[in-house]
Amino acid sequence: MHDIDPHAWWQRSDLGYQSNKLYFAGQSVQNLAYQFGTPSFVYSSARVEANLQRIRKALNKAGLEGRSSIFYAMKANRFAPLLRFIQQTELCGIDACSPNEIKHALSCGFSPSDISFTATSLSKKDYAELIRYDGMSVNMDTLHAIRTWGELKPGSEIGIRINPAIGISRSCNDRLQYAGCNTTKFGIYQEQFEQALELAAQYNLTVRKIHFHTGCGYLTSELEQLDRVFQECIKFVDAAPDVQLINIGGGLGVPHLSSDEKLDLDQWSKVLHKHFAHRNLHVEVEPGDYICKDAGLLLLSKTYVEQKRDTLYVGVDAGFNIAPEPAYYGLPFQPVPLVKNNSPLTKMTVVGNINEALDVWYENALLPNLDNHDYLALINAGAYSSSMSSNHCMRGEFSEFLLA
Amino acid sequence: MHDIDPHAWWQRSDLGYQSNKLYFAGQSVQNLAYQFGTPSFVYSSARVEANLQRIRKALNKAGLEGRSSIFYAMKANRFAPLLRFIQQTELCGIDACSPNEIKHALSCGFSPSDISFTATSLSKKDYAELIRYDGMSVNMDTLHAIRTWGELKPGSEIGIRINPAIGISRSCNDRLQYAGCNTTKFGIYQEQFEQALELAAQYNLTVRKIHFHTGCGYLTSELEQLDRVFQECIKFVDAAPDVQLINIGGGLGVPHLSSDEKLDLDQWSKVLHKHFAHRNLHVEVEPGDYICKDAGLLLLSKTYVEQKRDTLYVGVDAGFNIAPEPAYYGLPFQPVPLVKNNSPLTKMTVVGNINEALDVWYENALLPNLDNHDYLALINAGAYSSSMSSNHCMRGEFSEFLLA
Repeated sequence: MHDIDPHAWWQRSDLGYQSNKLYFAGQSVQNLAYQFGTPSFVYSSARVEANLQRIRKALNKAGLEGRSSIFYAMKANRFAPLLRFIQQTELCGIDACSPNEIKHALSCGFSPSDISFTATSLSKKDYAELIRYDGMSVNMDTLHAIRTWGELKPGSEIGIRINPAIGISRSCNDRLQYAGCNTTKFGIYQEQFEQALELAAQYNLTVRKIHFHTGCGYLTSELEQLDRVFQECIKFVDAAPDVQLINIGGGLGVPHLSSDEKLDLDQWSKVLHKHFAHRNLHVEVEPGDYICKDAGLLLLSKTYVEQKRDTLYVGVDAGFNIAPEPAYYGLPFQPVPLVKNNSPLTKMTVVGNINEALDVWYENALLPNLDNHDYLALINAGAYSSSMSSNHCMRGEFSEFLLA
Repeated sequence: MHDIDPHAWWQRSDLGYQSNKLYFAGQSVQNLAYQFGTPSFVYSSARVEANLQRIRKALNKAGLEGRSSIFYAMKANRFAPLLRFIQQTELCGIDACSPNEIKHALSCGFSPSDISFTATSLSKKDYAELIRYDGMSVNMDTLHAIRTWGELKPGSEIGIRINPAIGISRSCNDRLQYAGCNTTKFGIYQEQFEQALELAAQYNLTVRKIHFHTGCGYLTSELEQLDRVFQECIKFVDAAPDVQLINIGGGLGVPHLSSDEKLDLDQWSKVLHKHFAHRNLHVEVEPGDYICKDAGLLLLSKTYVEQKRDTLYVGVDAGFNIAPEPAYYGLPFQPVPLVKNNSPLTKMTVVGNINEALDVWYENALLPNLDNHDYLALINAGAYSSSMSSNHCMRGEFSEFLLA
């Protein structure tokens, strides 16, 4: 890639301009948009595999080779061809959070023993389904859940999801934080942990795993906080004599803005090494975003460009309902032109086709003149996009493609 | 209804306790939940009709009898039996915002001439569909849209969606505001209005209607602001000689909290009277929330009750993905017990079954002891709930029922 735009912070070896045309996963994105039409999500299987391998390498570097596992948080993206591809890499299992997710994972080739199940507020019907799967690892997040499981499957092994009352998230975004000063519904707090262990013992349940997930989207600048989170969480392990596994949840993030410094996995690895290398524990990690988010583009057609007061708007042919991350969490998707020209960059606000104030893809993106552009690509659309899509305004139609 | 709980601010003639059992639309809600299972949305057709009639009466009272129309904003709830019922009342037409919404409205018995179409960021494919419908009223929100329409259907009549640079919303919630100090994508601003009229003239388009929608969820306390919005909007009418219709959008809200004062339609009517009664204009209004929101309950099963630190959690068997208003806009759905008991009220936080920090239905609701309760109902679930639902975490299953 010889002509990197200094503003294009998102470029990398498999995503960038070659002879002024945007390439992704070895293919011309213009051709993909033309073939597939818009709106379309395209996912790079090679990037997904590379992301998985990077995590695997970091786990090994942390001294956890042979005693660590990756579980892909399938809620991030459950597109069946993608899930099937992930299964075939044999690099990870599945983090599932509902009975239907389990069934879908099994339909894509995973086995119950590949699945770590962590949910919340399970219904009687949910429990009745869950107990059917032998070999699946299940984590309980309330005393109620331990009691219910104990009644249904006494004598079995369980994990306990704990809440260390300290959280982590991208730039302290409270919509992405699952633990911290404010009480949350997630996991069992220190104050109730002894009671949880006693309850498990009552039903002859062996507590084999401590699970926690305290927030999403963390980058290098949040690793000091991750260190503090681990420090609190390990106290639960020390208090539970039968624990052999620790599941540190997901939360590994990818950059959304040019100002974001990407997660340095070497440093991440060091934090893991510090807390877990010297312990006789199997370490599990459950990323969703990190595996799939930057492996997906959302391809859109430009509908108009028009100045309104102080803002130059670029309209596109889909709205927040098919990829709600920007609206729900304030995580914008950088828009990327499919053809590079040398016109000066101007601030433009990319908006969708939904009649709602929320429907803004990106405010004040620096973009070149788009007169001769039919399409735009949004990066980071590989996770928490199609899986959370709705048919709001009956604008829910899109296609998905897994690229080689 | 003889035993009204003073805390139950949401009670009304068709929703409340009779002999300690919750009744809605003349039916025991306990029976409905038992029959239909959970999660289920139940909608009262009688309440929908009463809401429509109340608006009709207010329009008449404003001196607009025979020269006003209601268009139901179908994006609020497109459940086909409900839409069919609304059509049969003959009290309103449809506000549609996408080609698929038009088709769905037609499938439920509406005609193109019943439809007022206002969208944003239309694609070429959208325009190609739209021009097929003769008699449908269309509103253009950009110069680009006027130009495109002019090329496709020169000589036709159009409306122009304008932006008065002043907005309205429930408690100044910026996620619900479509116009104001900050520039938005919605409508043509004063600065470009003359150009818009010239452009229309170039294509021999007659500008018959001025359309605006400046925000959502307004209640009585926002009516002074509505007065100011009308004052600005009428300036556009005065500048456009062929205009015969004014569409004031929707935005009429319903109370979500005990502290909310419900929208006083008599006062609303006075604001309309002041601005429009003396003018030779047909007035259109496009409510969604006001027609359907308080006509719907979401019935859920209780999954657990458990204290965590300072918070007493009540879990239910569905999460924010099937009714995202609380998560998107911070509009909570008051939880209501199906059976009334006389236990002291305690603060409880009602949470769903999704592994996300966003998944909170209601924080610190005052609720009685729920030991003997299998279900809870959430009020105000009739609009922007099922229509915006997603299958996130594969927890997207629910049922919908239209009650007599």
